[in-house]
Amino acid sequence: MRTLAKTLSLVAALCVFAATAATLSAQDIALPSPQKTGGMPLMDALAKRSTSRSFDSKRELSQQQLSNLLWAAWGVNRGDGRRTAPSANNKQEIDIYVLLKQGAYRYDAKAHSLVAVAAGKDVRELGGSQAFVKDAPVTLVLVADLSKLSQKTEAAKREVAAANAGFISQNICLHCASEGLATGARMSIDREKLAPAISLKKTQWAVIANSVGYAKK
Amino acid sequence: MRTLAKTLSLVAALCVFAATAATLSAQDIALPSPQKTGGMPLMDALAKRSTSRSFDSKRELSQQQLSNLLWAAWGVNRGDGRRTAPSANNKQEIDIYVLLKQGAYRYDAKAHSLVAVAAGKDVRELGGSQAFVKDAPVTLVLVADLSKLSQKTEAAKREVAAANAGFISQNICLHCASEGLATGARMSIDREKLAPAISLKKTQWAVIANSVGYAKK
Repeated sequence: MRTLAKTLSLVAALCVFAATAATLSAQDIALPSPQKTGGMPLMDALAKRSTSRSFDSKRELSQQQLSNLLWAAWGVNRGDGRRTAPSANNKQEIDIYVLLKQGAYRYDAKAHSLVAVAAGKDVRELGGSQAFVKDAPVTLVLVADLSKLSQKTEAAKREVAAANAGFISQNICLHCASEGLATGARMSIDREKLAPAISLKKTQWAVIANSVGYAKK
Repeated sequence: MRTLAKTLSLVAALCVFAATAATLSAQDIALPSPQKTGGMPLMDALAKRSTSRSFDSKRELSQQQLSNLLWAAWGVNRGDGRRTAPSANNKQEIDIYVLLKQGAYRYDAKAHSLVAVAAGKDVRELGGSQAFVKDAPVTLVLVADLSKLSQKTEAAKREVAAANAGFISQNICLHCASEGLATGARMSIDREKLAPAISLKKTQWAVIANSVGYAKK
């Protein structure tokens, strides 16, 4: 019986692996489950909220830290697929692109995983023109697909997308304050260079970037 | 000696009163000091973040609740005057207008007080076209003065202002989640009616409104 149980549990494990492998390519990253409780009391995090522009290039974030950061930013927080930040008419037109030393990825909130868009390529410095950008181990770029919005003009779509990106970016700012991490939001992004590097469609607009890491001491 | 001490403390109290009276008109409201610590752990607040569109019209917020809400949203959190949310190039072009049953006010973050803009007038229903708006005891309207921004085009200024309003609105959403209050962000505002009612200048644009109250049961 013990052998049968062992065999069955091995088969079950292989099935889970096969199911995961079916949706994730070899270059994708399955994030550990996010820790959805804890952190600093909200008012204390608000008291500590500030913009950092100096990062320690030698301190990386762990996969668990990255998992928690992305869930806080724009994770699924309800069974119906709604998120930690609102979006106008629940269009969810924003995707977070994650620029790491080992490559660039799109955050799939539903699967809580990273889908490779530029595996093996370090394009972090395209996330901003400032010198500090390359030092941060992580740059999150909040990218709106304007084709998902129904406002009548391009200008109105961009206003809505900017507000929606602002909601998400503030989640990042507060999570970093809570976790002792440094971050700063910026709208100055080299969009012409970044868009092809992470294979954006023409309807996608990189709205806000937040570099994240430990402050340089 | 006891009489002298009493007299001196009375004189001191009168001086404080006079100093306050000098900056606040009779129609303004001096808010109690905000409670800058406590609240729900950040990740728990993020897990509870949701949009409400149904308010109990019979439950008001106390002055302390209003004080905490406004400080969380866009209060001064450092000695240099910086705030709980970022703004591009620290232009701080957003003002929060507070629509209450007893009147409309502009939040003065530095003095942490409410400056009357339409004393005695209930203009809450101009903060949105939806039926629920009039039920909420408080509507916060995030208004950008575009003349304070230096982007080259009107469109670029509005994108920056929308993102900056998004940061503040998310603070409101999370504070409400933490405090068991209901809120929802919206960009559908009757701007043509609201602007004259709260004496906005032509360069001011009402970007986002958040109604706040207790959820209807």
